Amino acid sequence: MAGSGEQEALVGNKQVIFKDFVSGFPKESDMFVTTGSVKLKLPEGSRAVLVKNLYLSCDPYMRALMKPQDANYGSVFTSYTPGSPVSGFGVAKVLESGHPDIKEGDLVWGVTTWEEYSVIKAPETLIKIQHTDVPLSYYTGILGMPGMTAYAGFYEVCSPKKGEYVYVSSAAGAVGQLVGQLAKLTGCYVVGSAGSKEKVDLLKNKFGFDEAFNYKEEHDLNAALKRYFPEGIDIYFENVGGKMLDAVLLNMRIHGRIAVCGMISQYNIDKPEGVSNLMNIVYKRVRVEGFVVFDYLQQYSKFLDTLISYIKDGKITYVEDIAEGLESGPAALVGLFSGRNVGKQVVTVSLE
Amino acid sequence: MAGSGEQEALVGNKQVIFKDFVSGFPKESDMFVTTGSVKLKLPEGSRAVLVKNLYLSCDPYMRALMKPQDANYGSVFTSYTPGSPVSGFGVAKVLESGHPDIKEGDLVWGVTTWEEYSVIKAPETLIKIQHTDVPLSYYTGILGMPGMTAYAGFYEVCSPKKGEYVYVSSAAGAVGQLVGQLAKLTGCYVVGSAGSKEKVDLLKNKFGFDEAFNYKEEHDLNAALKRYFPEGIDIYFENVGGKMLDAVLLNMRIHGRIAVCGMISQYNIDKPEGVSNLMNIVYKRVRVEGFVVFDYLQQYSKFLDTLISYIKDGKITYVEDIAEGLESGPAALVGLFSGRNVGKQVVTVSLE
Repeated sequence: MAGSGEQEALVGNKQVIFKDFVSGFPKESDMFVTTGSVKLKLPEGSRAVLVKNLYLSCDPYMRALMKPQDANYGSVFTSYTPGSPVSGFGVAKVLESGHPDIKEGDLVWGVTTWEEYSVIKAPETLIKIQHTDVPLSYYTGILGMPGMTAYAGFYEVCSPKKGEYVYVSSAAGAVGQLVGQLAKLTGCYVVGSAGSKEKVDLLKNKFGFDEAFNYKEEHDLNAALKRYFPEGIDIYFENVGGKMLDAVLLNMRIHGRIAVCGMISQYNIDKPEGVSNLMNIVYKRVRVEGFVVFDYLQQYSKFLDTLISYIKDGKITYVEDIAEGLESGPAALVGLFSGRNVGKQVVTVSLE
Repeated sequence: MAGSGEQEALVGNKQVIFKDFVSGFPKESDMFVTTGSVKLKLPEGSRAVLVKNLYLSCDPYMRALMKPQDANYGSVFTSYTPGSPVSGFGVAKVLESGHPDIKEGDLVWGVTTWEEYSVIKAPETLIKIQHTDVPLSYYTGILGMPGMTAYAGFYEVCSPKKGEYVYVSSAAGAVGQLVGQLAKLTGCYVVGSAGSKEKVDLLKNKFGFDEAFNYKEEHDLNAALKRYFPEGIDIYFENVGGKMLDAVLLNMRIHGRIAVCGMISQYNIDKPEGVSNLMNIVYKRVRVEGFVVFDYLQQYSKFLDTLISYIKDGKITYVEDIAEGLESGPAALVGLFSGRNVGKQVVTVSLE
């Protein structure tokens, strides 16, 4: 252990800094990349963990953190601090640990900051990576927060039954692609929507959705859903909100379920769109249930065992869209909201 | 039994006729009272039941039946037929029965038509009244469909726990007044809203709500709810929709529940208001669940035993607004939508 008087060399620490709160669509220029410095040594007695970040995750919820803290949203999210680095989920290697359960050399995933080296002050929130025979980047996606979101949302909130009709929006994204495949494994009929021909092809040809469509080519979403679901929808996995939700409500079956994971269409508009067809919740006795993955973390090890065996058995496929280097971080993050990414958007910081 | 050739005398049969489909607020002139005739004898071999109607129920869902059948609503409701009598729940006395379980002289409640005498062609939907030591009109309300709606909606959909914060809109109506009292019996803190000082006084002084307010006097419903629920709302029993729902969503607590019974504010406008604050469903992990009483009818006898003992023990109070005679039916029904009634709106047809 270094003595308290010992000087430690500072090293450069490239960072992605959040400039200021954003209204409308976020732009690359709402962030900037700079190089600060960091001492690669924890202070004496610290219980924090010093990590080298390897992969960072771009997730839609991060848009909410770019808005000022609103009392109504305060229960889940804490806004970014202007002038400080972006934070988010990531995979990292431990360089030094003040936490008894975490050791130097451990690989972990959890909330970190968008920079080369981070001091994580709440190391109890980190999860140690035990299975390293899959790509480590998977822990930002299918084996991390988005994967667990899909798993909990589908099995716990949707209460799926074999033969049911399942619709997934944003279906080529990190969460949607897994929800659709879990639904297929459950014996459901699954239709997904996405925003490009390439994504629609992925859904049908790689992820095994029964059908898929490009919502941008449908001027009447209600008609599109009636075409794909002539019998109606039992389960809607909601990632989009707004007009899509309004159209889905018109097509729900009796005792249908809507798991509300997010509403990405609403994140970049100052006043959310109104949803009008809510009386269908009564007529069709629909259950609409919001959820956040944090309420299901106790199921993580069961989830992980299940998913790893699905991946190894080739029952589940996973597509990532990898941006190289912190410099590409702002564009990668912003691209989520225009649908630029195909598959789970990851940013690599370092390969080791 | 009369021979098939025997002539039976026709008697006058006063009826409330539905004129034509309605847009906007229904008016008395959307119905008219006329006197037809009826033969007080079932055809030979009929399995129908001939009844004399005693009490008729005015319920908000009847507004939906005044619109043309919409494919999206078809699952629960069948629209009225222009030129035919209004139908709805009622209490009736059986004059003749072709159904083996129903006998002449039985008192029943169920769906009947707004006229003096009705031939009920689906008598298996009628429920025999066994307890006649309470006012028979109660079977249009607290002991009938609205009461069962309150009971199932509160206990089955809201999953209430002692100490939770409960908000009931349209709280002085047939359903709301019972929901609030059941919530008090469960040990909840209960606030109701209604549209007049008289109703607010009823809620506080007769039904035992902890607080109540006149929503018409609140220009900012969000602020009003924050005043009455500084800790937020665990359970919202939704009878109103629109702006009220939007304000409630801003005030829900984590893992809150919204039982959607109806949305009376939306029934008389052609395009429903948009509800914008739905992302709170995610942030607060709210469950929003629509229900219709028909899914819970197997619990009716348990409900009835419970409610009758509550009524006899003075634990539950009930307020009716009784209109005398079929002639007063159109005004009574229309008055629901302007909130004219104080308590459950009933129309008497005959006292015996």
